[in-house]
Amino acid sequence: MIGHGFMGAAHSQGWRVAPRFFDLPVNPEMAVLVGRSSTSTAACAEKWGWSESTTDWRAVLERDDIDIVDIVTPGDTHAEIAIAALAAGKHVLCEKPLANTVAEAEAMTEAAAQAADRGIRSMVGFTYRRVPATTFARDLVALGRLGDIRQVRAEYLQDWLVDEQAPLTWRMKKEQAGSGALGDIGAHAIDLVEYITGQRLRSVSGVIETLVAQRPLLREGQGLTGTAGDEYGDVTVDDLALFTGRLGGGALASFEATRFRTGRKNALRIEVSGSKGALAFDLERMNELEFYDATQPELEQGFRRVLVTEHDHPYLAPWWPTGHMLGYEHGFSNQVHDFVRAIHDGSVPRPSFADGLHVQRVLDAVERSSAAGSIWTPIAG
Amino acid sequence: MIGHGFMGAAHSQGWRVAPRFFDLPVNPEMAVLVGRSSTSTAACAEKWGWSESTTDWRAVLERDDIDIVDIVTPGDTHAEIAIAALAAGKHVLCEKPLANTVAEAEAMTEAAAQAADRGIRSMVGFTYRRVPATTFARDLVALGRLGDIRQVRAEYLQDWLVDEQAPLTWRMKKEQAGSGALGDIGAHAIDLVEYITGQRLRSVSGVIETLVAQRPLLREGQGLTGTAGDEYGDVTVDDLALFTGRLGGGALASFEATRFRTGRKNALRIEVSGSKGALAFDLERMNELEFYDATQPELEQGFRRVLVTEHDHPYLAPWWPTGHMLGYEHGFSNQVHDFVRAIHDGSVPRPSFADGLHVQRVLDAVERSSAAGSIWTPIAG
Amino acid sequence: MIGHGFMGAAHSQGWRVAPRFFDLPVNPEMAVLVGRSSTSTAACAEKWGWSESTTDWRAVLERDDIDIVDIVTPGDTHAEIAIAALAAGKHVLCEKPLANTVAEAEAMTEAAAQAADRGIRSMVGFTYRRVPATTFARDLVALGRLGDIRQVRAEYLQDWLVDEQAPLTWRMKKEQAGSGALGDIGAHAIDLVEYITGQRLRSVSGVIETLVAQRPLLREGQGLTGTAGDEYGDVTVDDLALFTGRLGGGALASFEATRFRTGRKNALRIEVSGSKGALAFDLERMNELEFYDATQPELEQGFRRVLVTEHDHPYLAPWWPTGHMLGYEHGFSNQVHDFVRAIHDGSVPRPSFADGLHVQRVLDAVERSSAAGSIWTPIAG
Amino acid sequence: MIGHGFMGAAHSQGWRVAPRFFDLPVNPEMAVLVGRSSTSTAACAEKWGWSESTTDWRAVLERDDIDIVDIVTPGDTHAEIAIAALAAGKHVLCEKPLANTVAEAEAMTEAAAQAADRGIRSMVGFTYRRVPATTFARDLVALGRLGDIRQVRAEYLQDWLVDEQAPLTWRMKKEQAGSGALGDIGAHAIDLVEYITGQRLRSVSGVIETLVAQRPLLREGQGLTGTAGDEYGDVTVDDLALFTGRLGGGALASFEATRFRTGRKNALRIEVSGSKGALAFDLERMNELEFYDATQPELEQGFRRVLVTEHDHPYLAPWWPTGHMLGYEHGFSNQVHDFVRAIHDGSVPRPSFADGLHVQRVLDAVERSSAAGSIWTPIAG
Repeated sequence: MIGHGFMGAAHSQGWRVAPRFFDLPVNPEMAVLVGRSSTSTAACAEKWGWSESTTDWRAVLERDDIDIVDIVTPGDTHAEIAIAALAAGKHVLCEKPLANTVAEAEAMTEAAAQAADRGIRSMVGFTYRRVPATTFARDLVALGRLGDIRQVRAEYLQDWLVDEQAPLTWRMKKEQAGSGALGDIGAHAIDLVEYITGQRLRSVSGVIETLVAQRPLLREGQGLTGTAGDEYGDVTVDDLALFTGRLGGGALASFEATRFRTGRKNALRIEVSGSKGALAFDLERMNELEFYDATQPELEQGFRRVLVTEHDHPYLAPWWPTGHMLGYEHGFSNQVHDFVRAIHDGSVPRPSFADGLHVQRVLDAVERSSAAGSIWTPIAG
Repeated sequence: MIGHGFMGAAHSQGWRVAPRFFDLPVNPEMAVLVGRSSTSTAACAEKWGWSESTTDWRAVLERDDIDIVDIVTPGDTHAEIAIAALAAGKHVLCEKPLANTVAEAEAMTEAAAQAADRGIRSMVGFTYRRVPATTFARDLVALGRLGDIRQVRAEYLQDWLVDEQAPLTWRMKKEQAGSGALGDIGAHAIDLVEYITGQRLRSVSGVIETLVAQRPLLREGQGLTGTAGDEYGDVTVDDLALFTGRLGGGALASFEATRFRTGRKNALRIEVSGSKGALAFDLERMNELEFYDATQPELEQGFRRVLVTEHDHPYLAPWWPTGHMLGYEHGFSNQVHDFVRAIHDGSVPRPSFADGLHVQRVLDAVERSSAAGSIWTPIAG
Repeated sequence: MIGHGFMGAAHSQGWRVAPRFFDLPVNPEMAVLVGRSSTSTAACAEKWGWSESTTDWRAVLERDDIDIVDIVTPGDTHAEIAIAALAAGKHVLCEKPLANTVAEAEAMTEAAAQAADRGIRSMVGFTYRRVPATTFARDLVALGRLGDIRQVRAEYLQDWLVDEQAPLTWRMKKEQAGSGALGDIGAHAIDLVEYITGQRLRSVSGVIETLVAQRPLLREGQGLTGTAGDEYGDVTVDDLALFTGRLGGGALASFEATRFRTGRKNALRIEVSGSKGALAFDLERMNELEFYDATQPELEQGFRRVLVTEHDHPYLAPWWPTGHMLGYEHGFSNQVHDFVRAIHDGSVPRPSFADGLHVQRVLDAVERSSAAGSIWTPIAG
Repeated sequence: MIGHGFMGAAHSQGWRVAPRFFDLPVNPEMAVLVGRSSTSTAACAEKWGWSESTTDWRAVLERDDIDIVDIVTPGDTHAEIAIAALAAGKHVLCEKPLANTVAEAEAMTEAAAQAADRGIRSMVGFTYRRVPATTFARDLVALGRLGDIRQVRAEYLQDWLVDEQAPLTWRMKKEQAGSGALGDIGAHAIDLVEYITGQRLRSVSGVIETLVAQRPLLREGQGLTGTAGDEYGDVTVDDLALFTGRLGGGALASFEATRFRTGRKNALRIEVSGSKGALAFDLERMNELEFYDATQPELEQGFRRVLVTEHDHPYLAPWWPTGHMLGYEHGFSNQVHDFVRAIHDGSVPRPSFADGLHVQRVLDAVERSSAAGSIWTPIAG
């Protein structure tokens, strides 16, 4: 695994725990952790249970005993590493966003397609697809329980930038993060809408905005936290993105991604309305799915709160009995299960790099629409 | 109408509004308001739209142009007035509780039975039966949608006595109020459970308690509000009642009535669990009913929030379109509709005085059980 | 009062009930009901308690005993009646939307301004301003409890057109209704956002859309209900409107108005986020306001559900005790109170015709933006 | 670790994961798994990551390289194993209930007290104390934010026995399980109330009941699941327990434990009301705590939904960022942290065996009260 930030901890937990619950066809070993600083990488490796650590990711790619490369670095390094890893014949799991630019994502997708011909698998880490409730939502749509999709609302609301003195971290610099609320959390909303509805966005109209243009530089610390200093730097990504998209099936979907919605901590919410029903998901209550069945007797219709914790709900069988909650990190174990099984079975894991590229194109179209007065902007591919 | 406190305002609104929405077979006229003080009664009569006012209820009973007597005085006066009114051939609507003692309630029920032989109707004012959601709940049980009733939970939670300096009003004096939380609000919970389940309580075990034994006397004002003075008086009714009852069908029902549940303002909640489903009602969200249908596919089961505002829901047709809320006072209009229609049709209106007597017997059994170490106590009748 | 549809019933209830609860400086009498059909108008007049009925509204304007004209007809007739009424020296309460076109609304506003110089009052019927929870929301913003407004989300979601066979009524014809979801319910959302934030929209970008272009004509009935026939007609208004606006203070506000959100019956929801707090309102739970106070200790912050039923909450004093719910129609009584008091006090009632004109201009700008590829469109005035 | 059922999986996850997130003073090694069947125990050991497996727990107690014994067997075997382990100088973590009888629990508590003199630690596995929200609730009470405790409501609602054909498993046999809903889930409610309030129950009045007396025997399988056969056996434990208790501070607390509340999957709910505030917890939304602060301005009071996911909330620091949810199993990691740290620091871990004994005495008193007509029954100790 390459990278050892917050995502590194989450992915490590996935690799560690998945074999203990799922019956995997092969049990992956946690071999090498790669980072920039040898000391902090070594410390993380020991903490998280990786056998070795190194600062040289290219050397790792040359090793025969490495089959899978998991990339959890910032987005600006994804393309180089992933393309090299695929060329080296390694299966690649790449954290989202696939890349910081459409061009990088296109190159990666091309590399992935070529590798696939040689049986090499690749996947993007949109882990919210692995929440049982979202997969169950997709199943309900696929089964036709909602009828024709008529409207979609998607929002990802956080509030950690409401404080104007919250310090400037790499997530607020375009060079490293590529994008702000739009790419960091909006991307999840886009992927989830496309996953649940089974339809892709074809065009968008929207606006992005930076509400606080300068923030104090970090006095110390390099991650997401640290002490604010006296000097200020420019925020070069958006704080907020509002856009409307047209789905392949014709329905309009409205999106909101923000780090400025006071009181909302991690509210990734999707509501899909169809001719026969509707469903609503909220990541802050991730073990629940609200389902409205418009085919029930009229007087008895209502949004029902389904606790998605039954043995036969998606991903649930190896976990706990009915009514026992899963948390954030379970998506990473479920993701490991899906990826390892796809590698073993020779099937194509989703979301593919092509899926990741499409999300990147949507993000790009939103930025271009915003720059052009919110004019409707088509999405290629 | 006799009495002009808070209930007088609510009943007046019922008489005033019902004919404007329902198609009543006859339109009742708001003739005479009766009270103790001629000036305040006259003021209320003008305010609320009664044609006349008086302090002599016996004189009103002798008038031929009066067909209906609506009693909204404190409970200690109900028996005398109601029995006299029935003897005078008036139809009687009596606010709950039917009386302050079982003996009074028995006499009233006997008088009502005799009057019924002469075509005179009587009814008790448990208006929460007239909330569309509770009547719809009863309908679902009656239709068998819940299967066999296995468990019931009923609570009526308020917090207006949490403040130890809240002044002593008549509702805290046994002579006038008869009972405290138990009789004032617990009675509603009992009636509603029996209404929704269609079963009567056969025995109870419980405890009642006064948490704050002395409170400041009112310096001025006689109603439920007023300024607290320097002197203190004894609270002679309960603040809190907890009891368990056995329903006719065999299920246990647990009850809680309290004026000490901090943060709960008017939370009359009923949850009924059966072999095929369950439902939950909360008066603080009185336009909603939660319904769980255990016959749905297992993966899709969940409590659904039904907005009980459809045209075909109980009582809704004459009111507003779907999704437009009713409030507290609508129960009084619905009650007027039911009572007037029963009088016109010659049918027996419910809840009858016999129903009210039964509730009184439950209250009495709870008090006796509490005095005897919570031992199970049978309920007569 | 001119007009006797659904709004006629609601306004009548307001005029009937307000004097029974509020201490009005003068008690308005329900004099004349005006409609097109003499028989149905007479029936409504008797039902609702108007002393007389007529089909000639011009004649009513000439009567000296008429002081107030309440207009509840479809929007295409508002301008003619209101301007004539103001010219005749009558105080005018005009149901929203103020008019079907900006030009009409401008003429009305001009007439209102001239009439105001003669002490004649006018007001628009955005009754959701009269819900205690929305007025309390405004108060919290005005008191600075939210700090600077950073983001607003407003939606008005209904689902009564999801059924493609729902018949074509006047609300789906541009000639009479002027607009569809946008003008009918979106207008409420716009007014409420401007009311609560105290800021006006300055520009918008949006899209409106008709999802079902043809619907069965009514076989019989003329109102909102009736039996669908075999013939079809064109829906000439929008079913759905999505737009983003820029408020005077700089914040972006996103709006959604739809009759196609399956399972949502009357969900007018407003969420306002500020630098110090946030609040959320949902008309389906109209007695509640969610409030988030970001100045509380960090570990204790959360959206709190305030039951807006305390004696000292806006409009509540004359109604029921704490925890007893108000419903849809109470807004109309509260509106009567505000209007009558403003007439008596000689103050300027809000929302004024100028407020209504502004809403009309927003609607117009949304339609023009939609027609121009969602380009940002400034709002005059 | 001794035992390898559902609890074995949960405890294994705790031992596996805790060192990867917390900074433990020593890192425990997962040495030996003990079970009855050598093959299934070996399979579980490999699956869960235990180095060895055996069927002889006594032999394990003799090993010098074993410092901690974790007991997750059914309750009837706890006393023998725990007493022997303590005698052998092993620190003991014993899953709840401490034992199946008061006598066993007393012997264990005595053994724990003697072992404590030698520096040997013991703890009971009430893991719901380790949920951040419940610990935060305890903190709020301890800080006086609720004032004097006036009332408590506790319920643990499940519905897995509503189906009369659900097969008879060991949890329904008194010999192994000791108790039914009362001891299995009611024990959690009792412990949590005592933990959060800091007060112990002094007496109880209650009723327990078996709603379905006979159930089909398992055709195969020995755990909690399996196929129902044609033969029937007696259910010898309760399905339902309702009781009221008096806390040390004087307040009444009402309890309900049931496997028959249709639609409730794992609803462990605690509501504590005090003179200055109230709080409510629901295990089905375990990352949330509702808090009502009665010292706020009256118009702004309401239950606030606190997402207990901040860095400074109890147990949260080593886990994920704000708004990322924890699940059921995290309590087991938190428990490992607390136990290992107490062993290392030489402090006394809670809940102690004495705490477990007290819960056992409450359960016993409820059973005796139920057998004696619900008469109030004191609790020793």
